[in-house]
Amino acid sequence: MYTRGIRMLRKSTAQIRKEDFTIEEIELPPLTSGQVFTRTRFLSLDPYLCNAMRTWTGESGWDSGRVIGRSLAEVIDSADDTLQAGDWVLGSGGWQELDIRPANQLQRIDPDGLPASAYLGVLGSSGLTAWIGINRVLRPQTGETVVISSAAGTVGGIAGQLAKLAGSRVIGIAGGREKCKFVTEELGFDDCIDHTAKDFSAMLAAAAAGCEALFENVGAKTLDPLLAAMKPHGRIALCGLIAHIQDDDPVSLQHFRELLMKGISLQGFRVMDYPEDHNIALQQLRADLKAGNIHFRETISHGLESAPAAYAAMLFGGGIGKHLVAM
Amino acid sequence: MYTRGIRMLRKSTAQIRKEDFTIEEIELPPLTSGQVFTRTRFLSLDPYLCNAMRTWTGESGWDSGRVIGRSLAEVIDSADDTLQAGDWVLGSGGWQELDIRPANQLQRIDPDGLPASAYLGVLGSSGLTAWIGINRVLRPQTGETVVISSAAGTVGGIAGQLAKLAGSRVIGIAGGREKCKFVTEELGFDDCIDHTAKDFSAMLAAAAAGCEALFENVGAKTLDPLLAAMKPHGRIALCGLIAHIQDDDPVSLQHFRELLMKGISLQGFRVMDYPEDHNIALQQLRADLKAGNIHFRETISHGLESAPAAYAAMLFGGGIGKHLVAM
Repeated sequence: MYTRGIRMLRKSTAQIRKEDFTIEEIELPPLTSGQVFTRTRFLSLDPYLCNAMRTWTGESGWDSGRVIGRSLAEVIDSADDTLQAGDWVLGSGGWQELDIRPANQLQRIDPDGLPASAYLGVLGSSGLTAWIGINRVLRPQTGETVVISSAAGTVGGIAGQLAKLAGSRVIGIAGGREKCKFVTEELGFDDCIDHTAKDFSAMLAAAAAGCEALFENVGAKTLDPLLAAMKPHGRIALCGLIAHIQDDDPVSLQHFRELLMKGISLQGFRVMDYPEDHNIALQQLRADLKAGNIHFRETISHGLESAPAAYAAMLFGGGIGKHLVAM
Repeated sequence: MYTRGIRMLRKSTAQIRKEDFTIEEIELPPLTSGQVFTRTRFLSLDPYLCNAMRTWTGESGWDSGRVIGRSLAEVIDSADDTLQAGDWVLGSGGWQELDIRPANQLQRIDPDGLPASAYLGVLGSSGLTAWIGINRVLRPQTGETVVISSAAGTVGGIAGQLAKLAGSRVIGIAGGREKCKFVTEELGFDDCIDHTAKDFSAMLAAAAAGCEALFENVGAKTLDPLLAAMKPHGRIALCGLIAHIQDDDPVSLQHFRELLMKGISLQGFRVMDYPEDHNIALQQLRADLKAGNIHFRETISHGLESAPAAYAAMLFGGGIGKHLVAM
């Protein structure tokens, strides 16, 4: 049996472009014991894939140029006791329509009244990242001012809502009026500064003056002015550097000295370093989602062929919330 | 009565040069109640003065261009009950030979068998900085590898010896073979890499591969390769940025992304933020000094007129250990 999947024509260089990808026919092996036959339902478009798209190393399968990422699939047929047809499963797999996969590398999910796609966003690694960054790294306190960059993205959006639930005043940074409106009106941030506005620096300096904490997803453009605006003993959780993910240029900070002058701490963190927190984080996020304490939005494109362009657009900041391909 | 003191002719621009300073006659007021008449014995040549030399702000007295720094003086005459002639006092004052000063702004010291000048170095803010950076920020563990930049300086030299006492393997970075020899042979570091050597990067990468902790005094030149060499969850205590103190250029880091990729923490710190630790730190440093657990060296120039050139030379890394002017 054959299916369709996405292969890279070349390693991406500076900017990742949809022309770097093509669709190919893939021959599937027969279903054997311990495996399941799956139909992909949602591909998760994540910035971290960028690195593998440029190097083709670090994750099995990439050597041949086949794109491997997180996805949500439906089991069509099963040769394993733990899964059966109709189950929804989460895992890492090729960007392709059908697949034969080992059952023990898939996680069955129970949507339980929530949209299944949430397991790639709020209830997936984005939500975990936000929860750990806020509750284990930044630990914002009641009355503190917390700044969140890339606030219209899934991680930033959840992080800001969690900081609000912790009693902080939360200021977002996002690109464009529509995103800023979403951040304040739908996500409930106290303010959101548009980094595409001409007077961005001045507005940010005014809104963030004396902030205690920063949840950083972007890079020098937001980190630098916030180092200047931050209070002594300020705390920075470094969650992402999306503005620097597509090149190897140095990160250049005019206000790096402020780390020293003000005794600021900067903590890079990775979800995989907090395995003991994953269950409690997911339980709390699930409860907050059900109670309506956390809101989210998805930017969805449709069909396998839309994935390359949707991925490139996501990197350029072209949508709100979690970026998915529905299939 | 008149004395001689150092005044700046102009605010320093890019590099601080001895030509920026001159010697002037200063008229002293009469000695009145609550004051003491002092003769300066040692001027402390500290990198942090750089900033005031360029801006003339932030410290009282600088507006007129008079240089104010830490110094050790002898009381010649006293109009205050707390101090008497012959006492050694520590405080902030003009770079001048004689002075009339409020007694309550001076701290009497009791050399007690140790050289008085140690109170500007190992038992002064340099020693405090090293102690707090090691014991309150970096907290090196037995068996860990700790890298110390500017290892032949007072702060770096003490920090490294404290890390050795804590059971760590300690690698220094210093400029030139003589300094490196001092760091390994006199201070007892396990290794010292010469940053003036042609193959500095490769040697540092080899020696520091998998290091857990960095006590950073310099800036991008040492921080950047160490971000690359460091283990996941590495810790950086940011104590100084001497390579960047003389300009306002951005600090540019090729390996900034490693903070994120490896979950590294970077903590800027200031001695003044740990007032509760000052006494215990000084007691322990004093005991270590007396027991011969900590060694130090001084680079001393003689006479008030030597101060400008000695200060500029210190910034260029031209000596070992604590830089002082003896008068």
